[in-house]
Amino acid sequence: MVIVMKKSCNRQEIDAVIAVLERCGMGANLSTGAQTTVIGVLGDKTKLEGLNLELMDGVEKCVPIMHSYKLASHEMCPEGRTVTVGGEVIGGKKLCMMAGPCAVESEEQVLEAAQGVRAAGAGFLRGGAYKPRTSPYAFQGMEDEGYRLLRRAADATGLKVISEVVSHDQIDLAGKYCDMLQVGARNMQNFRLLREIGKSGIPVLLKRGIASTVEEWLDAAEYIMSEGNYNVVLCERGIRTFETATRNTLDVSAVPVVRERSSLPVLIDPSHAAGKARYVEPLALAGIAAGADGLIIEVHPNPKVAMSDAAQQLTIPDYGRLVQRAGAVAQALGRTL
Amino acid sequence: MVIVMKKSCNRQEIDAVIAVLERCGMGANLSTGAQTTVIGVLGDKTKLEGLNLELMDGVEKCVPIMHSYKLASHEMCPEGRTVTVGGEVIGGKKLCMMAGPCAVESEEQVLEAAQGVRAAGAGFLRGGAYKPRTSPYAFQGMEDEGYRLLRRAADATGLKVISEVVSHDQIDLAGKYCDMLQVGARNMQNFRLLREIGKSGIPVLLKRGIASTVEEWLDAAEYIMSEGNYNVVLCERGIRTFETATRNTLDVSAVPVVRERSSLPVLIDPSHAAGKARYVEPLALAGIAAGADGLIIEVHPNPKVAMSDAAQQLTIPDYGRLVQRAGAVAQALGRTL
Amino acid sequence: MVIVMKKSCNRQEIDAVIAVLERCGMGANLSTGAQTTVIGVLGDKTKLEGLNLELMDGVEKCVPIMHSYKLASHEMCPEGRTVTVGGEVIGGKKLCMMAGPCAVESEEQVLEAAQGVRAAGAGFLRGGAYKPRTSPYAFQGMEDEGYRLLRRAADATGLKVISEVVSHDQIDLAGKYCDMLQVGARNMQNFRLLREIGKSGIPVLLKRGIASTVEEWLDAAEYIMSEGNYNVVLCERGIRTFETATRNTLDVSAVPVVRERSSLPVLIDPSHAAGKARYVEPLALAGIAAGADGLIIEVHPNPKVAMSDAAQQLTIPDYGRLVQRAGAVAQALGRTL
Amino acid sequence: MVIVMKKSCNRQEIDAVIAVLERCGMGANLSTGAQTTVIGVLGDKTKLEGLNLELMDGVEKCVPIMHSYKLASHEMCPEGRTVTVGGEVIGGKKLCMMAGPCAVESEEQVLEAAQGVRAAGAGFLRGGAYKPRTSPYAFQGMEDEGYRLLRRAADATGLKVISEVVSHDQIDLAGKYCDMLQVGARNMQNFRLLREIGKSGIPVLLKRGIASTVEEWLDAAEYIMSEGNYNVVLCERGIRTFETATRNTLDVSAVPVVRERSSLPVLIDPSHAAGKARYVEPLALAGIAAGADGLIIEVHPNPKVAMSDAAQQLTIPDYGRLVQRAGAVAQALGRTL
Repeated sequence: MVIVMKKSCNRQEIDAVIAVLERCGMGANLSTGAQTTVIGVLGDKTKLEGLNLELMDGVEKCVPIMHSYKLASHEMCPEGRTVTVGGEVIGGKKLCMMAGPCAVESEEQVLEAAQGVRAAGAGFLRGGAYKPRTSPYAFQGMEDEGYRLLRRAADATGLKVISEVVSHDQIDLAGKYCDMLQVGARNMQNFRLLREIGKSGIPVLLKRGIASTVEEWLDAAEYIMSEGNYNVVLCERGIRTFETATRNTLDVSAVPVVRERSSLPVLIDPSHAAGKARYVEPLALAGIAAGADGLIIEVHPNPKVAMSDAAQQLTIPDYGRLVQRAGAVAQALGRTL
Repeated sequence: MVIVMKKSCNRQEIDAVIAVLERCGMGANLSTGAQTTVIGVLGDKTKLEGLNLELMDGVEKCVPIMHSYKLASHEMCPEGRTVTVGGEVIGGKKLCMMAGPCAVESEEQVLEAAQGVRAAGAGFLRGGAYKPRTSPYAFQGMEDEGYRLLRRAADATGLKVISEVVSHDQIDLAGKYCDMLQVGARNMQNFRLLREIGKSGIPVLLKRGIASTVEEWLDAAEYIMSEGNYNVVLCERGIRTFETATRNTLDVSAVPVVRERSSLPVLIDPSHAAGKARYVEPLALAGIAAGADGLIIEVHPNPKVAMSDAAQQLTIPDYGRLVQRAGAVAQALGRTL
Repeated sequence: MVIVMKKSCNRQEIDAVIAVLERCGMGANLSTGAQTTVIGVLGDKTKLEGLNLELMDGVEKCVPIMHSYKLASHEMCPEGRTVTVGGEVIGGKKLCMMAGPCAVESEEQVLEAAQGVRAAGAGFLRGGAYKPRTSPYAFQGMEDEGYRLLRRAADATGLKVISEVVSHDQIDLAGKYCDMLQVGARNMQNFRLLREIGKSGIPVLLKRGIASTVEEWLDAAEYIMSEGNYNVVLCERGIRTFETATRNTLDVSAVPVVRERSSLPVLIDPSHAAGKARYVEPLALAGIAAGADGLIIEVHPNPKVAMSDAAQQLTIPDYGRLVQRAGAVAQALGRTL
Repeated sequence: MVIVMKKSCNRQEIDAVIAVLERCGMGANLSTGAQTTVIGVLGDKTKLEGLNLELMDGVEKCVPIMHSYKLASHEMCPEGRTVTVGGEVIGGKKLCMMAGPCAVESEEQVLEAAQGVRAAGAGFLRGGAYKPRTSPYAFQGMEDEGYRLLRRAADATGLKVISEVVSHDQIDLAGKYCDMLQVGARNMQNFRLLREIGKSGIPVLLKRGIASTVEEWLDAAEYIMSEGNYNVVLCERGIRTFETATRNTLDVSAVPVVRERSSLPVLIDPSHAAGKARYVEPLALAGIAAGADGLIIEVHPNPKVAMSDAAQQLTIPDYGRLVQRAGAVAQALGRTL
C-alpha cells in the first residue's frame, strides 16, 4: 500500500505518518518527487487495522498496490526512478547507450571496440567475461582477466563498464572492475544471485528471462530492491516464441507495460532479440520509439572472427550509423542522445 | 528462379529471354525497376534443363528463389512493390494511414469517426461490417448495411474504404463499396478466400495469422498473387505468445524480415496487438521506426460505448496526437506523412 | 444458465418449467441423463427477472454458466454427449479409431489403406480430398474425385468415411460421400463454414486451431451447435510452441480440461502433433491414457512415396501394432477397443 | 564421435582403440551393453586426422555425434543408462515413483506425507526445503531444517530423499541429507550449479526449463556429465505456452524425443504441468503411456492448508488411486510398479 500525501503537505505531516507506521512495526519508504509525495508501506499490513491513516493531516488517500512487487511498483515512486552510474543518469531525458563485444577476446579487441563505440557516442562499454554458453564445450569467456581488460579499455576511453556476473560469489571481484553488473536472461530467477547483488548495492541491469512475464520480471527486480539496492535498470531482450526468423521476438510492448506498472528505467537489447546483425537497427529504433531509456548493443571490430554470436554483432561503422538514427528518433520524441 | 539482367541490357535482350522461357512452356514475370531488371521464371523448372540462360546476351546471372513463394519474394521484384489504391500509393515514401472504428455501429458513429480521422490525416477509413467474433452470441456486425455506411461516410470525407470480408461469396458485394478488402488474421489460411480475392484483382490487406510464421504469411500472399493480383499489402497485428499483459505481442521484427524476404509493403496494426488503448501509441511509433509503410488503427468517437473491442479503440483526439508523433518519427527517418 | 432438476422430478414438473421459459420467449434445452436432468436456458436471461424458477416444483437449483459457450458446456449436459455416426457411438466406453492416408492419391492407394486399417480395427476411413496446403504450388488433393474414392473404398471394407471440407459450398457434395465432415485446424474460426456445417446437421470433427485456447475451441463448437447440430466431436492435434523437435506440441491436458468444461467427446490426432512417424505411437498411447475417446491417425500403404506429409504417416503394420497397444492401455483404464 | 565395435570384438581390440585415442590426447568413454559396445571419443577431433580408426581390428564403424552434447547422447550409450540411487534403479523396467509435499512445512506434515506415499508405493520422498518463489515475500521454505526433517521422515518410512538445491554452495549440506538432488526449472541453465553438482557425483534430477528446448536441456545435462557425474535423470514438467487452462503445458512428446537423442532416464512431473489437482492423474497416466521412467508428484496430507502450490497437491488417497492406475497402464505396456 502507498499513502499519497496532499500536494500541500509539509515535513511534520510526513514525519507524523512515518512515526505511526514505525510504531506499528511497519517500514516506511518515502518517495518525494516534483509532483507527488508518497510513503510506501512495507510489512504486514494487518498491523494497520484500526488506524485511520486516511484521516491524518496531509494525507490525501491510501492506495493498495495490487502487485506482489512493491518497491519496484509504479505506485511506490510515481515519477519514475533514475539510476546514476558514474555520473551518468539512466532513466532521464538523455538516452543511455551501452555497446561492446559479446565476449572479451583479447586486449586489442576490446580496446578497439571501446574506442569505436566511444567515438560513436556510447557511454558504457559492455563485454562478456563470463559467458553463459548453452553447451559446456563452447568458449566460456576470459573470466576474471576479461573484467580487467574491460576496465583497462574503459579507462582508456572514458567509458563505464558493464559486464555479466553468473554466480553470487563473483560479485565482489566483478564489482572491483565494473561500474554496473548484468544479470543475464538465464539467471533472472537465480534468487540467490539477485539477493546478493541486492546486498552489494552495485547498480544492476536485469535482463528479462527468455520466457518470463513482465510480472515475474518485476518480482525479480523486487528481490534485488528488497535488499536495499534501488539501482535497478530493466532490459528487454526478446522473448521466446514460435517464430524462428529471429533468434528471439523483441517485445516492444514491454516498454509501455513496464512504465505503467513499475518505476524502473528500461533498456532494449536488440542484438539478442534479432540474432542477425541486419535486423538490429530496425529493432533498436523501434525500442527508442516505444519509449525505452536506452540501448545495449553488441559491437565487434570484426564480427566475422568473433568467438561467440558472430551473426549478430555490428561493425563499428554500422553502430555509428545506428546511433545517429536513434538520436534522430529520440529527438523527434523529445529526448536526447 | 529469377534471371537478373545486366544494367546495360536492352529491350531486345529482355524479349529474347522471355521468348525462350515461353517456348519451354514457362511463365515469365518481368520486373523493371530503376536499378534492376529481373525476369521471374514461373513453372516447372526442370523444363529449363539444357538451356544455358546465363549465357544469353544481357543476362548477368540466374538466382534460385529458395522460398516456396515466388511472386511474393524479394528476388522477383528487388526494388519493392507499391500498391496504388484510389490514387494513394502504399509502400512509397509517404506513409499510409488507415483508421476508423472496430465495427460500424450506426451512420452517425461511422461518419463522426470518418470526419475525425480525416482531419487528423488519415487516407483510409476502416470499419468492420462483418465482425469475426470468437463467440456466436456476440455482435456480428451490421453486415451489408455496414459496407454501405462506410462508403457513404468515406465519400463525404474524401477517404478510401477498407473493410474485412470473411467469406469468398462476399467479395463481389464488398468490392462495390470498398476500395480495399481486408483478410483477417483468422482467415489468413482460408485458401478459397485468398484465391477468390486473387481473381477479383481488388487490392487486399493481408493480416498475419495469430500464430503464423512469416513464411506461412508470405505463402498466403502467394495464393493471392498466383491468381494475378499483385495488389497485396501485409499487416502485422501481433502474434500469440505466453505474455498476457497485452492482447497479442507485436512482432516489430516482422518488418525487417518481410522487407528482406518479400517485395510487399507492410503495415502495422497496433490496436489488436496492444488490446489496450494506452499502449497503442508506443506500438505505433515502434512500428514506424522499424520501417513499416503505415498504420491501421481503431478509432471510435466514444470508445466507452463501443459494441466491440472497447478497451483498445482510441478517441479522435488521441488519434490526432498519435499521427503527429508518428509523423515526427517518420520524418526523422526520411519518410513523410 | 441451467436449471438442475431434483432426482425425484417427474414429467409434469419438467414440462411446467419449460412452459414458463417459453412463455418468456426463452429457449429450453432438455438433457435427460441417467443421473441428472437439466434444462438449459437459452436467450436473453434478463427476461427471467422476477420469476422464481428455483421455487418451482421439482427444481433443485439454478446454475449460471460462466462461459460464453452454453450448448457446448458441461453444465448443459453433465453426463456428457455421445455422437452416433452410422451406428458407431463416439464418446462411449468403446474407443473410436479413425485412420487412413493424409491425402487420397489414387483408387489403389486408398483401397489398400482402407483394407489395412480395417483389418487393424479401425471404424472410420480418413483421407484428404481437399488438402489445405501452406503453399499454392503444393499438391491440393484429388478434390471431388477424392471423396468418391473414399466412399468406394469404405463401402468395400465396411468403414465409415471422414474427410475435410475447406469451404461452406462443399458441404452438400461432401455430405453425399462422407459420414462425417472434418473442420481443419486452419478453419477452426471460419465462422461461415461452422454455421453452415451446423445447419447441415452432418456429424463433424472439429480440430483445435494451431494456437487456439480451449475456450476459443469450445466457442467454435458453439457456432456449430447453435445451429441445432449437436453432433460435434473435438480433436486435439497439437498446438504451436517454441519447440521444434516435433511439428506441433501435443497438449494432452486438453483432454481433462475439455471433459471438465464441455460435454463433447474428444479425439487425439497424434500424427499432426508428432510430425514424425516414430513419435506417433507414444503420443497416441498418451492420449488414450489421458482419457481421450479415440484416435485419428494417418496411415499410408507406402509412406515413402506419399504426396504429402510423408514423414508422419504410419505403415499398415505399424498402425496395427499401435492399435494393439492402445487397446491394452484402454483396457487397463476400463475402456474397450 | 563414437566408435561402434563389432559384436565379436574382444578386450584386446577395445584396449587397442582406447590406447590410440589416449596417445592422441583424446578421452575415451567405454560403454559396454548387452547388445553393443561403443567407445565415445572426447576432445578435439582434429587430432584424429590421419588415423584410420575404422580400419582397426574389431571396429565396425565410426559415427559422428551431430549434437553439441556427447556424453548425454544416445550414441554414446545406445542401450540407455540407468541411475541407481540407494539400491533403486531408475530407467529400468520398474517405474520410479517419487512423491511428497511441495514444501516441508513441519515435522508432522512431512512424516504424515511420507507414511502416506510409502503406503501407496512410492520409493522416494520429495519435499522442498529451499523454495524458489517468484516473489521475495512468499514463504521461502524451512531451509536446512527442511532437509533434516525430510531425512528423518524418510528414514522412518524406508524412503529415499530427493530435494532441490538452489545454489552451488548448498550442495555439500544437502548431500548429507538427500539421496538425490533436484535442479529446478528456473536453474536449468545455472551453469555453475550444474558443474558443481557434476563434481559432487551425487545423483541429480534435472528439470527441463520452463521454455527450454530438448536440445538445451540435454546440453544442460552435458554440463553435469562433463564433470564425470553420469547419474543424471531428466524430468519433463510442462513448458510455457499461450494456453492458460493449465499452469504449464505438459509436453509428453519430450519422452520419445529424449529417448531417441539421449541415453538418460526421464520422469514426468504432472503436478507443475497441471497446476490443478484434478488434472494431475490424466497427465501422469499420459506420461507413463508415452514411455516415461516414472513420476514425481506433489502430495500433501491436507492440501487446503498448504503454504505453497495448494491448488495442485494431491491428497494421500488420490495419490494412492493414481499409483494404482499408473501401475495398470505400465503393466499394459510391459513395465512394472
